[in-house]
Amino acid sequence: MNIACILAEGFEDSELRIPLNRLTAAGHRVVIIGKQKGEELVGKRGKERVRADESIDAADPGDYQALLIPGGKSPEHLRADERFVRFVQRMDEEGKLVAAVCHGPQILLTAGLVRGRTMTAWKTVQVDLRQAGAHVVDREVVVDENLVTSRKPDDLEAFSREILNELSELAARR
Amino acid sequence: MNIACILAEGFEDSELRIPLNRLTAAGHRVVIIGKQKGEELVGKRGKERVRADESIDAADPGDYQALLIPGGKSPEHLRADERFVRFVQRMDEEGKLVAAVCHGPQILLTAGLVRGRTMTAWKTVQVDLRQAGAHVVDREVVVDENLVTSRKPDDLEAFSREILNELSELAARR
Repeated sequence: MNIACILAEGFEDSELRIPLNRLTAAGHRVVIIGKQKGEELVGKRGKERVRADESIDAADPGDYQALLIPGGKSPEHLRADERFVRFVQRMDEEGKLVAAVCHGPQILLTAGLVRGRTMTAWKTVQVDLRQAGAHVVDREVVVDENLVTSRKPDDLEAFSREILNELSELAARR
Repeated sequence: MNIACILAEGFEDSELRIPLNRLTAAGHRVVIIGKQKGEELVGKRGKERVRADESIDAADPGDYQALLIPGGKSPEHLRADERFVRFVQRMDEEGKLVAAVCHGPQILLTAGLVRGRTMTAWKTVQVDLRQAGAHVVDREVVVDENLVTSRKPDDLEAFSREILNELSELAARR
């Protein structure tokens, strides 16, 4: 399956690397979508450097079965740009799997997708989500229909496992 | 008057410097409160380096007439620490002037102080505040009773002016 990963500078290095490795190892293709195709994006710890495979202007939600949103400082940049917010909204409207970790759920909040949803996030973001009407729980991974959320780097194996489970179920239903 | 300024690493340099200069020029005393007394705090642009005058553990809301919350990455660090969140809550409970700019209102959101308030903030934070029940307006400075908020570095002269106006009114009522 094709998985869109929306990314900006300052992402939490492990929150890209671990899901990306687990997903590609299972045979999925992860496409990194940035402001510009080919731009270099560096993680906040300087450990990961990746190039955007696709620009947000050219990205079509119809091409992807799932959306991955790593945390760190990346989501705060992404949610300041309406093109990324609309992309997230369209993925959700089309019922695609939406997976966000740590600060990733900040862009779900901007996109107006959290009210009434059961989810988790980084501890500071949990409070924002709760006040926006989400049902927030403090667990390593939470699945609510098409939404998979986790709290922090320690949760990444559980996060990746649930994304893979959901993709397997999706494949079985086809 | 004594003004408490809560601060952590990565603050937006100008959002400390300009209000601090305007307030001290008007004869007020700004006390920088950090996690530890004496810790060096560096702005996100590396232009400003300040030392904390006081630790959050020793800080007493009763000693201050106003609270200043610069933006940048500082508020996200502060709101992860319950001691700062409680300090903000106590300043508000005691009716002290609370002034926050850019990402500063994030800690007001964490502290549960935004529902029903008329206020502003950095554009991404505006959406969070609105979903938490604040009445958000997109103006350079907004005053709602004891709360003064602004959006970004360009607003700092208006922000500083309104803080000074509020402190003058407070002095006149004494």
